[in-house]
Amino acid sequence: MVDCVFCKIAKKEIPAHIVFDDKKTMAFLDAKPTSLGHTLVIPKTHAETLDKLNEEDLKSLTVAAQKISKAISKFSEGYNVIQNNKEVAGQIVHHVHFHIVPRKKGDGIYWNRPYPEFSEKQVKEIVEKIKKNV
Amino acid sequence: MVDCVFCKIAKKEIPAHIVFDDKKTMAFLDAKPTSLGHTLVIPKTHAETLDKLNEEDLKSLTVAAQKISKAISKFSEGYNVIQNNKEVAGQIVHHVHFHIVPRKKGDGIYWNRPYPEFSEKQVKEIVEKIKKNV
Repeated sequence: MVDCVFCKIAKKEIPAHIVFDDKKTMAFLDAKPTSLGHTLVIPKTHAETLDKLNEEDLKSLTVAAQKISKAISKFSEGYNVIQNNKEVAGQIVHHVHFHIVPRKKGDGIYWNRPYPEFSEKQVKEIVEKIKKNV
Repeated sequence: MVDCVFCKIAKKEIPAHIVFDDKKTMAFLDAKPTSLGHTLVIPKTHAETLDKLNEEDLKSLTVAAQKISKAISKFSEGYNVIQNNKEVAGQIVHHVHFHIVPRKKGDGIYWNRPYPEFSEKQVKEIVEKIKKNV
């Protein structure tokens, strides 16, 4: 897509520290890494969010994400796989991407998650809502 | 696996709010949700981390995770897909699982990520290390 920075990286129109590159996917270091080796994995075909990917692109993307995960698991104490959809969820570049984040003790990275209380009625309703839409 | 709470949920030995269930995967609400509809997606076969999944289980798991993502995208402002590997990365239950977290403005959820500085030498070395292991 025109003006999509990840499309431009996929076409090698702008540089990146590429660690994996095949027909349908690419992986490169995050330009603003939160840990050493923090890698992004993208499909070469533009799609905004995970729900928009077709079956083939979903498969190739997740296979590539696992390849990077396996590589990172060999030299890290652990890792996070994070994928943000829409601005409210922290998505900055609107081209679907997985963050693979190598972790080590004391690195200061964490997921800040409140634990709100929900009523039984709310829970029952959301279960039905998800089931209806799956 | 004996004593794995997610294996027990998969076998329906302990209850959960199940929203999706097929031959190889299951999705159910997180028992300690951070937002309404916060869902976990698991393979029924035990594996500890993403890198340990075989090809077939990876595919069925990510297809199921996308199904839940699609459902959640229909009624949320956005969503995160989060998958933690090893305790240092925040993994509590040692059975691979994707969190699908519906988001809305002002929900207080965020990924706390420091931005450490790395030298060109460090970056170059980590690129080679990942490439060598992919």
